[in-house]
Amino acid sequence: MNAFRFQNPTALYYGKGLIEEHLASETLKFGRKVLLVYGGGSIKRSGLYGKVLGLLVAAGVETFELSGVEPNPRLTTVRRGIEICRREGVELILAVGGGSVLDCAKAIAMGTVYRGDVWDLYERPGEARATGALPLGTVLTLAATGSEMNSGGVITNWETKEKLGGGSPYTYPKFSFCDPENTFTVPRDQTVAGICDIMAHCFEQYFTPTPDVPLQLHLMEAVMKTVVEHGRAAVDHPDDYAAREAIMYAGTMALNGMIGMGVTGDWANHTMEHELSAEYDIPHGGGLAILFPHWMDYVKDVDPHRFASLGAQVFGVDPAGKDVGRLAAEAIARVREFFASIGAPQRLRDYDIGPADLPRLAGQAVRFGDIGQFRKLGASDVLAILRSAL
Amino acid sequence: MNAFRFQNPTALYYGKGLIEEHLASETLKFGRKVLLVYGGGSIKRSGLYGKVLGLLVAAGVETFELSGVEPNPRLTTVRRGIEICRREGVELILAVGGGSVLDCAKAIAMGTVYRGDVWDLYERPGEARATGALPLGTVLTLAATGSEMNSGGVITNWETKEKLGGGSPYTYPKFSFCDPENTFTVPRDQTVAGICDIMAHCFEQYFTPTPDVPLQLHLMEAVMKTVVEHGRAAVDHPDDYAAREAIMYAGTMALNGMIGMGVTGDWANHTMEHELSAEYDIPHGGGLAILFPHWMDYVKDVDPHRFASLGAQVFGVDPAGKDVGRLAAEAIARVREFFASIGAPQRLRDYDIGPADLPRLAGQAVRFGDIGQFRKLGASDVLAILRSAL
Repeated sequence: MNAFRFQNPTALYYGKGLIEEHLASETLKFGRKVLLVYGGGSIKRSGLYGKVLGLLVAAGVETFELSGVEPNPRLTTVRRGIEICRREGVELILAVGGGSVLDCAKAIAMGTVYRGDVWDLYERPGEARATGALPLGTVLTLAATGSEMNSGGVITNWETKEKLGGGSPYTYPKFSFCDPENTFTVPRDQTVAGICDIMAHCFEQYFTPTPDVPLQLHLMEAVMKTVVEHGRAAVDHPDDYAAREAIMYAGTMALNGMIGMGVTGDWANHTMEHELSAEYDIPHGGGLAILFPHWMDYVKDVDPHRFASLGAQVFGVDPAGKDVGRLAAEAIARVREFFASIGAPQRLRDYDIGPADLPRLAGQAVRFGDIGQFRKLGASDVLAILRSAL
Repeated sequence: MNAFRFQNPTALYYGKGLIEEHLASETLKFGRKVLLVYGGGSIKRSGLYGKVLGLLVAAGVETFELSGVEPNPRLTTVRRGIEICRREGVELILAVGGGSVLDCAKAIAMGTVYRGDVWDLYERPGEARATGALPLGTVLTLAATGSEMNSGGVITNWETKEKLGGGSPYTYPKFSFCDPENTFTVPRDQTVAGICDIMAHCFEQYFTPTPDVPLQLHLMEAVMKTVVEHGRAAVDHPDDYAAREAIMYAGTMALNGMIGMGVTGDWANHTMEHELSAEYDIPHGGGLAILFPHWMDYVKDVDPHRFASLGAQVFGVDPAGKDVGRLAAEAIARVREFFASIGAPQRLRDYDIGPADLPRLAGQAVRFGDIGQFRKLGASDVLAILRSAL
């Protein structure tokens, strides 16, 4: 494995009733002026907004609000949040929602403290560094991004059509509350996209060039196996507590750093998908579900044994009498089948994306250099993958 | 799963060269007066002592020493350490060694701050609570206890022949350095005992009564599978870096809380083993290797499916055509085989333990009440297990 330093300071709360019991006391550790960040109003319909606000008000907290955070959260929204924080002297940001809301809140937390323009931190991460962040707490409503227990996030600049990731050691949430019941009302297609995102986070780490990481690979297999075993139930029975909990917890573990210590991730699919989302505003998880099987076909010869392991360990493919090439192909077929079984999109045309823009998008994806680590991809590779996904 | 709060603040360093690069700077975050805690001198023979001391001295650190920490660390040694810390105004304790050294250092860290007698924190954890702790850093030399990334530890009171666990939110190491090369010189029997301890930590959590913990079980299987795949190589080829690294990392992950969130552990075998170690001063891991298969035979009917899963997922037992009872028996046989394959002790008589003391030890094991969670065990149950292990 690579030499590494790991530290994840987030206090993670899982289960029913913990928000009622601990949200106010966790909040008061950081101050009495709180910016509530949330999305399009689903938390008002579900009653979560009322519950959270009631607890904060009862604890004597003064709240400010930033609502309407978009599914691919926009830089303009981040800027509005920063302005509120600076003007009102906000002491804690409380993000209530899914990964987009949390990512937006992280950008606001860094951007409020940073003296330059917040977009620098995403566009020029080599030169511009976060110098601190407002404390951040989260109440999660969607199993997907793992943003509740990591320091990263993704922001879209709609003017330049760029979707870029960023983060800092300061943007780990101080606390995160994950109650599976808060995911019961998530619409079916968002549940599906979330599940695809969780699988994608595992794939990005599983297809690593780093040698000698046996435990890490087995930990990733454990997360993927859990998603495959319980994903369908979470989609078909939205109020199946155990299934929702298994998926929510898988989402946290897939990207809180614990399964990937000392592992160089690939992340080419995320880079390609960000171009699609920045151009067409499609759901991140849906884009990943489309791209990954095609990427797998394109790169599988780099290490077919890794794919064979995926098939055997995650999907229970019986290896008896099959050569490694066939096992790799079978594993990729099982990935496709799983995504199809939960109703994930399978082709770019499912989002009305045609061939015209693809050469430009491929060029855009590699504008900072070749992408991927398992196999390095240039513009022509990306274009081939995008075309096969049409 | 159980509702839970999880937070593990330890900064974990893994790999070659990180001690040289970061030990001094991590130390200086906490102060310039450091108590070095270590064992019987093996770190002097290996050169690690000289390296660590050299780095600290070059950084202007004033060091004090507590050496000779025993394999089952004793309360008398803890008291000596507390006295040094109080007298000298120590600002950081740096434990260099295996789990015993680290556990001793945790007790000193808590005991220095606690106004009462440190043994209270182990003997009466319900009433006596740690009120703080000196900061603690560690340099690990033995893959076993996971103490490098958790808040617990075990201390033996030789006067009363009691071996008890304790801990506090304050005793997570601030930082831990794990370089697999520092385990190359560990004697074979200690390597074996460490591997048994790691497997035991997984068993204690795997045999849980908590329902709906699919991901946690898969994560535990991942750790166990890694130990089974690489344990033999680590024993037979002490300088096999990849094998030593896999085992060391498995030891950390087995008991840093990450694989067991929301899971009620069993821990009956640890309680029984502590009585054996307190009476006969035998290696903890060796005692566990002896006890666990007998405990498994005794309790397997509680949930034979759990045992069947262990066999299939960890040992690759083919379930075709076998009923669950046979699969459970086969899993236990595979556990025995694995322990035998690395040369672990298999019978109490391997440590010259005979039947005479067993009734008294069984009574002692349950003196705070029945033990275990997967199946509750009273004195007669414990006695039956101990007798079968003779």
